[in-house]
Amino acid sequence: MIAICIHGGAGDRQRSTEDSRILQALGDALDAGWSVLESGGAALDAVQVAIGVLEDEPLFNAGRGAALTLDGSVELDAALADGATGRVGAVIGVQRVRYPIAAARAVLDHSPHVIMAGDGAERFAIEHGCDPVEPDFFVTERSLAALKRYRDNQSRVELGTVGAVALDAAGRLAAGNSTGGVMGKLPGRVGDTPIIGAGTYADHRVAVACTGYGEYFVRVGAALRLAMLVELGSQSLEAAACQVLDTVTALGGRGGLIALDADGTFTMPFSTSSMARAWRRSDGKPGVELW
Amino acid sequence: MIAICIHGGAGDRQRSTEDSRILQALGDALDAGWSVLESGGAALDAVQVAIGVLEDEPLFNAGRGAALTLDGSVELDAALADGATGRVGAVIGVQRVRYPIAAARAVLDHSPHVIMAGDGAERFAIEHGCDPVEPDFFVTERSLAALKRYRDNQSRVELGTVGAVALDAAGRLAAGNSTGGVMGKLPGRVGDTPIIGAGTYADHRVAVACTGYGEYFVRVGAALRLAMLVELGSQSLEAAACQVLDTVTALGGRGGLIALDADGTFTMPFSTSSMARAWRRSDGKPGVELW
Repeated sequence: MIAICIHGGAGDRQRSTEDSRILQALGDALDAGWSVLESGGAALDAVQVAIGVLEDEPLFNAGRGAALTLDGSVELDAALADGATGRVGAVIGVQRVRYPIAAARAVLDHSPHVIMAGDGAERFAIEHGCDPVEPDFFVTERSLAALKRYRDNQSRVELGTVGAVALDAAGRLAAGNSTGGVMGKLPGRVGDTPIIGAGTYADHRVAVACTGYGEYFVRVGAALRLAMLVELGSQSLEAAACQVLDTVTALGGRGGLIALDADGTFTMPFSTSSMARAWRRSDGKPGVELW
Repeated sequence: MIAICIHGGAGDRQRSTEDSRILQALGDALDAGWSVLESGGAALDAVQVAIGVLEDEPLFNAGRGAALTLDGSVELDAALADGATGRVGAVIGVQRVRYPIAAARAVLDHSPHVIMAGDGAERFAIEHGCDPVEPDFFVTERSLAALKRYRDNQSRVELGTVGAVALDAAGRLAAGNSTGGVMGKLPGRVGDTPIIGAGTYADHRVAVACTGYGEYFVRVGAALRLAMLVELGSQSLEAAACQVLDTVTALGGRGGLIALDADGTFTMPFSTSSMARAWRRSDGKPGVELW
């Protein structure tokens, strides 16, 4: 069994002329990740590759086109977790690395540390082969317009964080996430994406990637909570995922998550009006859905 | 029942002429936190006050005297978790706020976010009343000498992160931690301290503050894992704490933690040769110990 699930963010999206392009990009990311798994590659690589495709697509809130801080800058967060080895890597607030998920991978592969922030994270990633870019590379007309709308009327558009979970032919699980955070965030704000155990987590039983109002996912430790409910609570993956979203809801938060276990069972619940998502398993057809 | 436990870091400390001063400072921090609890104050305030005392003492790896990065700068992390409300606040990599734990409290009290990093965190904290200082305020002859020893022979001295957990008369739990990270860390490195669920966690059942090689505590989500073992695994607090340290050990990591539950039961296990710690409960005498 091999399997991959991708999310392109949970949020209160309006139907839009961009929807078909979003579905297309999700399908492309799914295909890219699937190719890695199909050729016997590692779940960790499949997750990274799939997320990289979405970081390049300005319609998602990750990499180019990501949400801007209140002062108009980008501060990108990303994380990867390798369930087979327990190794993790995450970056916080990077502005000069083209693929934040590759920076997270550099931390995982080459650093004695597991999470790195700011300038230090950028320097480390670039020293380890990540593509450097100027911060304005990430800023698009669309993201500037979205920030203006937020400043004018405090209305946030869909969140659009991206993430993936995968199971490879060797039975290894992995999870990853990449985001620009919430539009109009205060500079320095860190959400759940790079917080291992909150937005992103994988072990040998389950891989989880969360999306939504990250503050609430941090407060409940959503991803690890799900894994512990499965491990200790004898709950099904779906029941555990729903319980975690209920815990988030009880605090006033909303969002969604994708979770996959070592049998290839997956669940993709969300409490927002939409969650962009795609999935494929070796015993079924690929799927892609927004609503 | 009111109770407070404090740690001054787990590590492989050598006996030293500084030991009596460390014990004295732990006692002072304990007294400061205890006074808050005894006068009917909140667990969250007791934790913050106790940690602030240790941030001012250069012998601990937090605030003034904290461990330096490989390039000789300070990057301070701190976190607070209020178990009663589920609110949390953390700062990452601050260099210009005298009491990082007060900055974490500012994020908890005043921010729409839960974790803030770098310049943005500093600006937010100072706007909300935290004392600004220049980064060299934190650098001491002792920390420079420790960095030189690390550069010369890669030997790290005791870790010395500080933290506290408390239970107040209203039955509320809180947890907090403050650190400079590991001596000689790469600039940008983030450990477990500001990672809610890894180094610091509290809910209405249990409050946990971890210390040690933070990378491992992040990978296993130590603090939330402990809480979930208690909640779902029907384990005693002590058994859950030991199981978490065993999980850390299995990955090759070491450290310790302090954990307190709503009945006032506490446990303070460590897998290093020492963990500076102090404790007091309304039905017993205060204690302070290094070994």
